Amino acid sequence: MRYELYYWASIQGRGEFVRLVLEEAGAAYVDIARTEGGEERMLALLDDDELTCPPFAPPFLKVGNRLIGQTANILLFLGERHGLAPKRDAGRLWTHQLQLTLGDFVDEVHDVHHPIAASLYYDDQRREAKRRAADFVANRLPKFCGYFERVLAGNPSGPAHLVGARLTYADLSLFQVVAGMRYAFPNAMARVAPQCPQVSALHARVAARPRIAAYLASARRLPFNQQDIFRHYAELDR
Amino acid sequence: MRYELYYWASIQGRGEFVRLVLEEAGAAYVDIARTEGGEERMLALLDDDELTCPPFAPPFLKVGNRLIGQTANILLFLGERHGLAPKRDAGRLWTHQLQLTLGDFVDEVHDVHHPIAASLYYDDQRREAKRRAADFVANRLPKFCGYFERVLAGNPSGPAHLVGARLTYADLSLFQVVAGMRYAFPNAMARVAPQCPQVSALHARVAARPRIAAYLASARRLPFNQQDIFRHYAELDR
Repeated sequence: MRYELYYWASIQGRGEFVRLVLEEAGAAYVDIARTEGGEERMLALLDDDELTCPPFAPPFLKVGNRLIGQTANILLFLGERHGLAPKRDAGRLWTHQLQLTLGDFVDEVHDVHHPIAASLYYDDQRREAKRRAADFVANRLPKFCGYFERVLAGNPSGPAHLVGARLTYADLSLFQVVAGMRYAFPNAMARVAPQCPQVSALHARVAARPRIAAYLASARRLPFNQQDIFRHYAELDR
Repeated sequence: MRYELYYWASIQGRGEFVRLVLEEAGAAYVDIARTEGGEERMLALLDDDELTCPPFAPPFLKVGNRLIGQTANILLFLGERHGLAPKRDAGRLWTHQLQLTLGDFVDEVHDVHHPIAASLYYDDQRREAKRRAADFVANRLPKFCGYFERVLAGNPSGPAHLVGARLTYADLSLFQVVAGMRYAFPNAMARVAPQCPQVSALHARVAARPRIAAYLASARRLPFNQQDIFRHYAELDR
């Protein structure tokens, strides 16, 4: 059975956290919106009043006749199915807890360039974005990076992974967050990097995994761009 | 075994979603920060570098020697343990998906009065808050309320619950969101209410459950207030 991933065709966005898990798992999937007529199919599903379990927004994953929405929830599902999360309850929940914290960080990154409304253009909220970016770079970025550094350094199984001695979906997501932040905030990331060596090392290790390296080198990996969650505006990254 | 809930002592906040589940479950718990020296104990845990699974922020729940953080993750744990979520995988994940969407809504409500930074006072971001509130009331609130109305109306087991024919933690959370929104945005909620009769009915049904009614009438239920996530500023709710 092939998974169907529904997410916007031109950005990595929140869908990328799902793509990375599917790629690392070697799972068969179709990125629906990137196929002919796929984005229309996605929008039709979002408007389908007959669905009993309607997704609120992309990404969502079609598994047989089920639709599963919310990024962290999709990863909870895929992680259990593809051995990318611990089987025991404590490790399973700890992995999910880390994912939800990464999700909070991603929400904050988005709101740096859209502090007033997602429905408005960046240029309509530039002044507010500059104010928000100053706080984000000074307070929030170091707090989040420091937290994940502490989790890696404190892992009883060693700092190679966030949870235990094996790769989990939370590692893949932390890789993606670091990659995105290096694109969007290269100066701020360069300043914070010396305090977060384990986070940087994890990013490099994930990037070198055979399936991830092949994915990153393929046309399936969309480039970062200025319509995405991670955006580079020089004026926000002094 | 008694649970220990760690959350700020003076607000409902995100901790309230956990409190409601504990109360409905009839679980024994201590609201640590509201005990003598409890807030200091909570802050000490947040600063404890020896923890292998440190929480990023309150709320977190101590269960034996485990600490479980992230609101939705705590509910995932408690829901399974106390029969407040379906046992089968599909229903369990659907409940969690709804909870994560409610969490997104709560994040947006918070950012209406804090669009620039949580670390700044409201008065330091009033102008930006007014801009954000206009979009929130016009676009986001109707979208979220309409979504949950659609989920209730489309539930094959009937509109009494979000998932299946029994109460889940997602119902308790939707109750709390409606209660908070009625406090914070009474005008906007009055305008949206006619389109969301099932959401209003669910709020009333949850409020009337014996354990929830007893909790709401008790001193354990903190009043809504202007330090909380749900805040009433007349200028944001024309």
